[in-house]
Amino acid sequence: MGKNFSDFFLSSECMIRMASGWFYLSCLLLGSLGSMCILFTIYWMQYWRGGFAWNGSIYMFNWHPVLMVAGMVVFYGGASLVYRLPQSWVGPKLPWKLLHAALHLMAFILTVVGLVAVFTFHNHGKIANLYSLHSWLGITAVFLFACQWCLGFAVFLLPWASMWLRSLLKPIHVFFGAAILSLSIASVISGINEKLFFSLKNTTRPYNSLPSEAVFANSTGMLVVAFGLLVLYILLASSWKRPEPGILTDKQPLLHDGE
Amino acid sequence: MGKNFSDFFLSSECMIRMASGWFYLSCLLLGSLGSMCILFTIYWMQYWRGGFAWNGSIYMFNWHPVLMVAGMVVFYGGASLVYRLPQSWVGPKLPWKLLHAALHLMAFILTVVGLVAVFTFHNHGKIANLYSLHSWLGITAVFLFACQWCLGFAVFLLPWASMWLRSLLKPIHVFFGAAILSLSIASVISGINEKLFFSLKNTTRPYNSLPSEAVFANSTGMLVVAFGLLVLYILLASSWKRPEPGILTDKQPLLHDGE
Repeated sequence: MGKNFSDFFLSSECMIRMASGWFYLSCLLLGSLGSMCILFTIYWMQYWRGGFAWNGSIYMFNWHPVLMVAGMVVFYGGASLVYRLPQSWVGPKLPWKLLHAALHLMAFILTVVGLVAVFTFHNHGKIANLYSLHSWLGITAVFLFACQWCLGFAVFLLPWASMWLRSLLKPIHVFFGAAILSLSIASVISGINEKLFFSLKNTTRPYNSLPSEAVFANSTGMLVVAFGLLVLYILLASSWKRPEPGILTDKQPLLHDGE
Repeated sequence: MGKNFSDFFLSSECMIRMASGWFYLSCLLLGSLGSMCILFTIYWMQYWRGGFAWNGSIYMFNWHPVLMVAGMVVFYGGASLVYRLPQSWVGPKLPWKLLHAALHLMAFILTVVGLVAVFTFHNHGKIANLYSLHSWLGITAVFLFACQWCLGFAVFLLPWASMWLRSLLKPIHVFFGAAILSLSIASVISGINEKLFFSLKNTTRPYNSLPSEAVFANSTGMLVVAFGLLVLYILLASSWKRPEPGILTDKQPLLHDGE
């Protein structure tokens, strides 16, 4: 038994080392892409759209794209990949669960502040809320994110759920995690597209003449897509999943855990 | 050996029967959702946008949303799920490969005709092509679809590729298949959103007052999202994947096959 146990850890060590190289290269790419998504959106809003404020004006709206890209895409994407870190493959799972939940909570807070920015701007300027397909899809994604977080917390962190229930819900949790990211990306794309049609309609160089703002913002949208696809690849690429003995530690609840 | 073989088929039969019920229920839902996506888009274009023509006018443009939803989402989604049919789990894989390739080719042809419709309309009316983020993302999705089809044909149907190469490329093929569908859905959402802002801007009831056309077209967009998520769920839900002995039949090439 002792030998099997040390064999398991030795082979785990070996698997970790093998997977680590490519994984960290992907993480480097992911970190660069994610940073670029946020920085490009900030630069777009700062350089072409007049910067930021928190006063109900159009400058308050400018927080909306930045916070939604940061919250619903970049932080959300990073938070989703916690269990793909080779370090999380062995040893107690609880710290990783807490990190996963905490990072997603941060992503959710950024998202909510991003929604407050756009609703306040609309209400201040007597503009209707939630009429476009962009907003319908976006609010659906945020609602599903809230449900997913609460359900995840209740089932995978609180101690009441049985192993059977956890095993049943885990693939559904992973699938909905990926689905919500896909919906967020579709919302971001339609949002950037809509914003450019709004902002560049009565200018000397409209959207269809591809001024530098349009090229820059379109490229930002394509970066968001690239980031999202890389997250989904790392999430679904089986070689980076926690090996199955990990299922034994799946039953570590928050309150019964002595780690 | 003979007993193992019959055991395998008996257990396969049992698995097929168990999985079939839920699978066919999902297929029924998928078929209904897919038909609704196409019919709703046709109804939107026919009832609110003046119907169809093939003469370079705005009525020629109206083919674009219908054909893109039909080709890049509904036919593409259906074609992706061929290997999830329980009947494809046992016996020769080649007919299913041919069906998979043929259905995707049909989806691609619909897509190309949909692109011809929008480019002809633009060129006829001296409107710029490929400037919006919707078009950048859409053309990327179509380009990746073309690459995916050609690579799939070359590696999985033609006889030259080794088992090793096929096993290496199969998960990448499945991932890119799902990724292209996600990109298509993001393109469709941004396209519907953009079309509604265009069509409903100088009317007595603009988009932001949510006239019946806006509610109908937004709902069509949400249906497309629901259809896409259901396809991705069936594609990625492991209980409906061809069981692994199927990997043995993975090496059946087109030209060496006596089935």
